[in-house]
Amino acid sequence: MDGLRLYIGNKNYSSWSLRPWIAMTAAGIVFEEVLIPFDDAGGNPKFKEFSPTGRVPVLQHGALHVWESLAIIEYVAELFPDAGIWPYDPADRAMARSISMEMLSGFRALRGACPMNIRREKRAIDLPEGVMQDVGRITEIWKTMRQRSRGPFLFGPFSGADAMFAPVVNRLDVYDIPVDENAEDYMDAMKAHPAWIAWRDAALAETWVVPADEA
Amino acid sequence: MDGLRLYIGNKNYSSWSLRPWIAMTAAGIVFEEVLIPFDDAGGNPKFKEFSPTGRVPVLQHGALHVWESLAIIEYVAELFPDAGIWPYDPADRAMARSISMEMLSGFRALRGACPMNIRREKRAIDLPEGVMQDVGRITEIWKTMRQRSRGPFLFGPFSGADAMFAPVVNRLDVYDIPVDENAEDYMDAMKAHPAWIAWRDAALAETWVVPADEA
Repeated sequence: MDGLRLYIGNKNYSSWSLRPWIAMTAAGIVFEEVLIPFDDAGGNPKFKEFSPTGRVPVLQHGALHVWESLAIIEYVAELFPDAGIWPYDPADRAMARSISMEMLSGFRALRGACPMNIRREKRAIDLPEGVMQDVGRITEIWKTMRQRSRGPFLFGPFSGADAMFAPVVNRLDVYDIPVDENAEDYMDAMKAHPAWIAWRDAALAETWVVPADEA
Repeated sequence: MDGLRLYIGNKNYSSWSLRPWIAMTAAGIVFEEVLIPFDDAGGNPKFKEFSPTGRVPVLQHGALHVWESLAIIEYVAELFPDAGIWPYDPADRAMARSISMEMLSGFRALRGACPMNIRREKRAIDLPEGVMQDVGRITEIWKTMRQRSRGPFLFGPFSGADAMFAPVVNRLDVYDIPVDENAEDYMDAMKAHPAWIAWRDAALAETWVVPADEA
């Protein structure tokens, strides 16, 4: 089998890159990582050379390029069906996809106001309208799923759904947004995961600053 | 097996309802349809009774509720693996998901300015910034995929990816947005599909008017 190559942006800022990266790393999938830094606006014209949308992440596998973070997660879940990327129970798997797609398509107020920023010192900001509504729905999802699975992650062990919500853990943390105890427990579990720690340490070592993502 | 029940909004307006409905219908899947009309703002407080997000569509299967249109399509694709909802070739399937997720998460300018409206008389409007950029990327996707597959649909026969783009066919049509010949051919194929015709005829027979979706 050809090797897998994952193109990503800055680990400090690229929330979409983190999602497939942590899904693949947590599942033990070996891949080559190609990091291409963002320009000041949070993009890079070079992305067009390998990405049909001009955005990262992109997974290359031989001649195939897969784009969109969740489509990459689906692709590796099919390549490695026993790696536990999706829950084994069909109902759990359906809900894992429902909440992953809610994340993919929604929570725009939170995403716009609070960019992922691993290096950021914890500090509250004035939150625009809609952010706390997004936070309320996210923490409701986390509570519902962790009560069903008994945790520590949304469906028990770490899954693709946790990968989709991973950047939110950083956002709630560094913008000092108040959450309930279940959310705190979930965030603690995420921040103790070895794949999270590896990404975080790499982000802390980066020196690029992207003004567009400094809120 | 318990029966499948799909909760949807108005056929004239609910682009998200159309997506799983046409995927399931085109694949020959039998299901009960429950249509709950929108209020003037394009929602309905009753949706909360069966939908964790308060939005439609929702697929009910026994005790399980699946939300988000593409998660519903994934669920029925797993239930009926031989129904051809996703392309059989793994590379095609990966690309079908990439473009489906691009649709799920993007094209906000087009979606905001040009709500799906099956009954609308064809008439151009002033298009805000960004709409033609969305249209350019959509028609580029259609061209790339139909050149690979030789059509008539994005991956040859009708698939879940076509279901995701079905509402765009109405938008380009009724807002009289100029497109290339490949896009016209694709739109003709969509509008000749029996599942499209069934949905369209039901929408034409509806009498509800949702002011928020009349652009």
